[in-house]
Amino acid sequence: MAADVKILRGNIIHTPALGELETLAGGYLVLEDGVIQGIFPVLPERYAACPVENWGDRLIMPAFADMHLHAPQYPMLGMGMDLPLLEWLNAYTFQTEERFADLDYARRVYRRLAEELIANGTTRVVMFSSRHADATLVLMEELERAGVCGCVGKVNMDRNSGVAQETTEASMAETLRWLDGCRFDHVKPILTPRFTPSCSDELMAFLGRLARERDLPVQSHLSENLDEVAWVRRLHPDCGRYWETYEKFGLWKEGTLMAHCVHSDEAERGAMAGHGVWAVHCAASNVNLCSGTAPVRRLLEDGVRVALGSDVAGGDQLAMYQVVTASIRASKIRSIETGDRPLTVPEAFYLGAAAGQRYFGGGAGFVPGEKLHAIVVDEGAFPEPVRALTLAERFERAVYLMDKSSILAVYSDSRRVDRKERAHGGEI
Amino acid sequence: MAADVKILRGNIIHTPALGELETLAGGYLVLEDGVIQGIFPVLPERYAACPVENWGDRLIMPAFADMHLHAPQYPMLGMGMDLPLLEWLNAYTFQTEERFADLDYARRVYRRLAEELIANGTTRVVMFSSRHADATLVLMEELERAGVCGCVGKVNMDRNSGVAQETTEASMAETLRWLDGCRFDHVKPILTPRFTPSCSDELMAFLGRLARERDLPVQSHLSENLDEVAWVRRLHPDCGRYWETYEKFGLWKEGTLMAHCVHSDEAERGAMAGHGVWAVHCAASNVNLCSGTAPVRRLLEDGVRVALGSDVAGGDQLAMYQVVTASIRASKIRSIETGDRPLTVPEAFYLGAAAGQRYFGGGAGFVPGEKLHAIVVDEGAFPEPVRALTLAERFERAVYLMDKSSILAVYSDSRRVDRKERAHGGEI
Repeated sequence: MAADVKILRGNIIHTPALGELETLAGGYLVLEDGVIQGIFPVLPERYAACPVENWGDRLIMPAFADMHLHAPQYPMLGMGMDLPLLEWLNAYTFQTEERFADLDYARRVYRRLAEELIANGTTRVVMFSSRHADATLVLMEELERAGVCGCVGKVNMDRNSGVAQETTEASMAETLRWLDGCRFDHVKPILTPRFTPSCSDELMAFLGRLARERDLPVQSHLSENLDEVAWVRRLHPDCGRYWETYEKFGLWKEGTLMAHCVHSDEAERGAMAGHGVWAVHCAASNVNLCSGTAPVRRLLEDGVRVALGSDVAGGDQLAMYQVVTASIRASKIRSIETGDRPLTVPEAFYLGAAAGQRYFGGGAGFVPGEKLHAIVVDEGAFPEPVRALTLAERFERAVYLMDKSSILAVYSDSRRVDRKERAHGGEI
Repeated sequence: MAADVKILRGNIIHTPALGELETLAGGYLVLEDGVIQGIFPVLPERYAACPVENWGDRLIMPAFADMHLHAPQYPMLGMGMDLPLLEWLNAYTFQTEERFADLDYARRVYRRLAEELIANGTTRVVMFSSRHADATLVLMEELERAGVCGCVGKVNMDRNSGVAQETTEASMAETLRWLDGCRFDHVKPILTPRFTPSCSDELMAFLGRLARERDLPVQSHLSENLDEVAWVRRLHPDCGRYWETYEKFGLWKEGTLMAHCVHSDEAERGAMAGHGVWAVHCAASNVNLCSGTAPVRRLLEDGVRVALGSDVAGGDQLAMYQVVTASIRASKIRSIETGDRPLTVPEAFYLGAAAGQRYFGGGAGFVPGEKLHAIVVDEGAFPEPVRALTLAERFERAVYLMDKSSILAVYSDSRRVDRKERAHGGEI
């Protein structure tokens, strides 16, 4: 049987490695049976008879991956930003998350969230849900329906968690019940101890066993602010370092995602690099909550794998193009303070797109043998430049200026998933 | 003859003083002959027969004022952001500005810019143009046409200005020719020495005389980065401080606008407060160009009048709601560094809206006796909250989340100036 061929034509831009930018004007991106065959300056003879989805002079770029956000905090986006962290948690966060006991409410909010992710060009995520098994399954279902791929975790928190606290038994039972319900093609479970202060040793040990027995990935928070670091030290006098509180329960392992790492020193960075633990940098959130600026350049130089997260709702923007520019700005602030070299636009874009692809086992950029995660960007709403721009300049400008309306098409796992298909399908 | 009465109904939110937020649910904002009469919880009897523009549950808030931006840099928005300041100026800025010798190009770019300002809810501006008298008049005409009010300056620069440099004679002659052409109702001239390093003493003296003789306002740049401060010291060994290079030519006076002030120390802040000179804080630009974070809290505490600017294209966003949140973020970074109290959302919004109104001689907020500058914000695209929100919470959320599509209507100088009038006029 002949393969199902799909061909996209346009200005193809991607980042095959950190800091590298590859551009191809009027190139062809060819898929067979949903698998990328390659990028070609001229369409190979064997595809001559196949229809081409022609995006003309528009930009075809990798889609974004949001590697840390709290789905049940989406309703409080942009609220409480004047409050310090602990008041913010108590006045907004825990109460907001508790609302997700209501599955109708969860369904409405998560459907909107999933649609907004796609509309903003984010096709892969790693998310925190709330403590509720059922609402977490609703979230996974809505992501699956909208075309978002990735991992979602029912949150575990059996101490220091205000109105949102579970008993240890309930936390364990709900986790098992949730895992039993996880039967989605593109959305998989990830174990999610909220962070060390909110999980008893018993719960951490349970999650560590589960991670090992079922070979499940893990996500949590690490070294977000100094009060938290000191708190963890008081809670675990046996552990010299924050990260050891995860390690001693088997949660510090290859592929574990740790959000923030603002105050990760050389030793902690070494432990991340050595164990294959990822740092998820959430620049907007770190500034909003006055946590500081994460040492991204040092993490990278120390061999830690880094990706970006919106950290909704500590972060006030869901759109990853804004998270990418926020991470550039944070790195510039840090550069003024420490002399660390700031992130370039291609580097930050790599961290916001390709890094997530690599987390999920792929290569960076549009790599043969992989599924397509891409966006098509239209520059029609951008100012008229004074001269013809290079594709590298257009890429940079698009990262800074794009918004929902400039993202014309979104491909996730090689499927077109945006809701504009009908509107634009005929024009091109 | 009976007065022309206009009544807006909706949730009225404004900032009558720095740090104060006043809200009125379902209130009436009444204008007679384009002049605000007051805000009323119940419509006064005498207006009972007048038609009401009913915005329902939407938010009626003051429009923004962008007190520092470079109109001819609009085409390079979001470009060259990885370059250091001097390379950025030479690779992009001067070349871009030179393009405005072409009046057709200027017309197209400035028309788009003016429309984008209105679409984003900015009704008042103080702008730098390029060195070109004719293009500057085109800019003023396009602002006037779109409904943007404020001041525009033909830039003067007769030294250290690369390809954009003028001769001293041409700079003076063009300035006079430009001033002769300024005949606009809502857009007025402001004298604009680019900054001390780019103006000879002769040119500065000429501008100082002109400011005095014609009672014209002045804008320029001050203490943006440390290299610049050192450069000014070398250029003017007779001046102990940067600001004295403006004072000695009569340019440091009541109402003078100085952009940036990132490195303004206590003495410079005192000189600003003492002379009635304004600081225009451009948070996004200061981070993008690695200039630093301005001492906004200290400027305010020292009695300096502060407003906000997008500083397009050092700033990468034209929308003032984004500049407002950028200024909050910058103040949080500074708070981590120095302990200075960060800006609250109402404070930052005041600086981005009411402060500009005060610059132009008005009071803060919707004040009887003044013209209306307002936006109507629709929250339909924001996430569904977990409970009914207070108007103060809705205000805060709107500042963080609004975009062009949520700004339903824009009033400038009491006229409805957005292009949505027809689309929405019938629905309400």
